[in-house]
Amino acid sequence: MKNLEATAIQLKDGRLQILDQRYLPQRSDWIVIQSIDDMVSAIQHLKVRGAPLIGVAASLSLALYCERTADMKRIQQAKQTLQNARPTAVNLQNCLDKLMQQVEQHGPNSALPFAVALFEEDQLMCQQLGAHGASLVAIGDGCLTCCNTGGLATAGYGTALSVLKSAHDVEKDIHVYAVETRPLLQGARLTTWECEQYQIPHTLICDNMAASLMAKGRIQKVFVGADRIAQNGDFANKIGTYSLAVLAKFHNIPFYCVAPSTTVDSDCPNGEAIPIEQRAADEVKGAFGGFGQAMWAPSNTKVYNPSFDVTPNHLVSGIILEDGVYSISEFQEQYMEKQVCGQ
Amino acid sequence: MKNLEATAIQLKDGRLQILDQRYLPQRSDWIVIQSIDDMVSAIQHLKVRGAPLIGVAASLSLALYCERTADMKRIQQAKQTLQNARPTAVNLQNCLDKLMQQVEQHGPNSALPFAVALFEEDQLMCQQLGAHGASLVAIGDGCLTCCNTGGLATAGYGTALSVLKSAHDVEKDIHVYAVETRPLLQGARLTTWECEQYQIPHTLICDNMAASLMAKGRIQKVFVGADRIAQNGDFANKIGTYSLAVLAKFHNIPFYCVAPSTTVDSDCPNGEAIPIEQRAADEVKGAFGGFGQAMWAPSNTKVYNPSFDVTPNHLVSGIILEDGVYSISEFQEQYMEKQVCGQ
Repeated sequence: MKNLEATAIQLKDGRLQILDQRYLPQRSDWIVIQSIDDMVSAIQHLKVRGAPLIGVAASLSLALYCERTADMKRIQQAKQTLQNARPTAVNLQNCLDKLMQQVEQHGPNSALPFAVALFEEDQLMCQQLGAHGASLVAIGDGCLTCCNTGGLATAGYGTALSVLKSAHDVEKDIHVYAVETRPLLQGARLTTWECEQYQIPHTLICDNMAASLMAKGRIQKVFVGADRIAQNGDFANKIGTYSLAVLAKFHNIPFYCVAPSTTVDSDCPNGEAIPIEQRAADEVKGAFGGFGQAMWAPSNTKVYNPSFDVTPNHLVSGIILEDGVYSISEFQEQYMEKQVCGQ
Repeated sequence: MKNLEATAIQLKDGRLQILDQRYLPQRSDWIVIQSIDDMVSAIQHLKVRGAPLIGVAASLSLALYCERTADMKRIQQAKQTLQNARPTAVNLQNCLDKLMQQVEQHGPNSALPFAVALFEEDQLMCQQLGAHGASLVAIGDGCLTCCNTGGLATAGYGTALSVLKSAHDVEKDIHVYAVETRPLLQGARLTTWECEQYQIPHTLICDNMAASLMAKGRIQKVFVGADRIAQNGDFANKIGTYSLAVLAKFHNIPFYCVAPSTTVDSDCPNGEAIPIEQRAADEVKGAFGGFGQAMWAPSNTKVYNPSFDVTPNHLVSGIILEDGVYSISEFQEQYMEKQVCGQ
C-alpha cells in the first residue's frame, strides 16, 4: 500500500494520522484516525481543517472503511455521516461523491487507490494555484491574507498561501500580512507558523487593523481561500473575508479568491443559497487552544458567531483555479459552461 | 472637601481611587493614586482609560499635587509628565492646560475646586451627548459600537455608549452590537459589562463580523467615540474605527462620532497631523488581563500594533458634541468658527 505524507496528514502502512491543528504552534500532536466517528470529531473540532484537506482526509477515512466492509448500505451511511460534519465546505461533499461513484462502479476495493489519487491531485492542484496566482504578484507587493490556507489546509502547499509561497520562491520580495482571524486565530497561530517555516517575511495584525494598513498603502493585493464558490462567483469563506473584500474595494486593491475547482458548487446559483454554520458562543467569549484557555467576556454575554461569510462576486477581482485565473464574467461564462458541457 | 463618585473613579476625603479596568469584568479592584507617577502608570497600563476620563483623572491627580506643593516649577513638570503619558488623546492635554491656566492665575489652592468642576462638567457633558445622539436613533435600531465609551471611559455615562444608554432609557427598543476590539478587548470585557449593568439588550461579535451583520441589515447606526478630532472633522479613535467607517459607508449606514468638545484639537488641521502610538507586540500575539494570560502566536512573530487609526471626515455622517449634532460642513464652518472667535 502506498504511503502518503503532507504537512498535516499521513497515511503509513494503512494507518491514517492527522496533525491536531488546535494545538499549533505550541505542540505538534499527531492523532490516529481509526473510525468514521474519529474523522467526524476531527472535522467538527477543527483538529483537521481547510476545505481541501477536509475533503482529502474524509475520503481517505471512507476508503479505509471500505477496506473493512463491503456492505454498500453501511458505506453509504458512513459517507453521509462524514458529509454532515461540515455543511458549508463543498469540497467535502464533492470528494465523497466522487469516491462513492467509484465504489458503486468498481466496488469497495477500488476506494483506497482512488482516495490516494485524490490526495495526489490535491498536491498538484496546490502547485498550479500557486503558479497562476504568483503571476499576478508584482515585485515588492504587500499581500494580505486571512485564516490559514496553506499546507495545513491542503495536501500540498495550500491555496491562497500557496500563491504567496510561490511568489516568495520566485523572489518577488513580497511581505505577507496575516490577519489573526478571530475567533479561532488560524491566522495568528497557523499562517504565521507556516510563513516562518517557509521563511516568508510576514507581519501579524488584528482583524481590525487591515483597513489602516490599506489606507497607508502597505497592501497591494489580497488573496483568500474559499469554502464554496457559487455559479455566479459569489463565495463563502472564513468569517471576515467579506469585510476584507469591502475594504479592498474601497481602497482599489485587487482581491482574489484562490481555490481548487472542487470548491465550485455547480448546483448553487449564488451566495444566498450557501448554508452558513453558527458556532459555539464560548469561541467569541474567549480563546482556547494549545496555548491554554482564556474567557474574558462576562459569562452571560450573548454572541453572534457565524463560521463563514459570503463575498458577492462584484467585490472579486478574479477567481484563481488550478487551470487559470478567471475574471468573474469569464468564470460565469467559460468555467460554468465547461461544467455544463460535462467536464 | 467635596466627594466625587463615578463608575470608575472616586474622590473621598481627598483620597483619589480608580477602578483597575484591566481586570474587569472578572474583578473590581480599586487602586489608590498617591502620586503623579501612580497616575502616569495607571494611564499607560490602561488601568484608567477613555479619553475623557483620562483628562478628568489626570486633572484630579495634578490638583491633589497642588495641595502638597506651591512650587510652580514642580507643578509645571508634573503637568508635563502627565501630559506625555498618552500622546494621542487631546482631552488630557486640554484639561491639564485649563487647570494650569487656573493655577497660574489663581494659585495652586484653586486647583482642586477647578478639577472637581471639570469632573462635574464631564458628567453633564455625558448627559448632553446622550440626549443629542438618542434623538438620531429610531425605534428598533441595531446600533454598532466599538471599544468602550461608557461610564468606564468618562465621569458620567460616557460618549457613544451614553447615546445608546439614553436611547434605551427612552425605550427606543434598541439592540447594541459590541465589537470585541482587539487587541485589548475593551468591547468584549467592558462594553458588555456596562450593557449588562444597564440591562441594554446586546450581542458581542468579533471585529471581523461587523461587515456580515451590516450586509444582513442588522445594523442601522454606528456610534463611536474619539480621542482627537481635527479642524476638518477627521478624527482618531481606537484601532478598528476606520474599518467600521468604511464598512458603514459601503452599506449606507449612518456613522457618528460622539465626543466632548475637549476632544477637538483646534491646532490640528487634519487627521494626518494626529500622532498615533504603536503599542507592544505581545498585545497582538496573545491576550492578557484579569482573565489570565494566553500567548498564541509563534514567539518570533512580528506584529503591527497601532493603538488608534484615523477616520477621514468624508466617512462621517455627523459629529455629536455636547451642544448638538454637526454635519461635517457645519462642524467645519460653525463649530470651528466659534473656536476662532474665542469661545
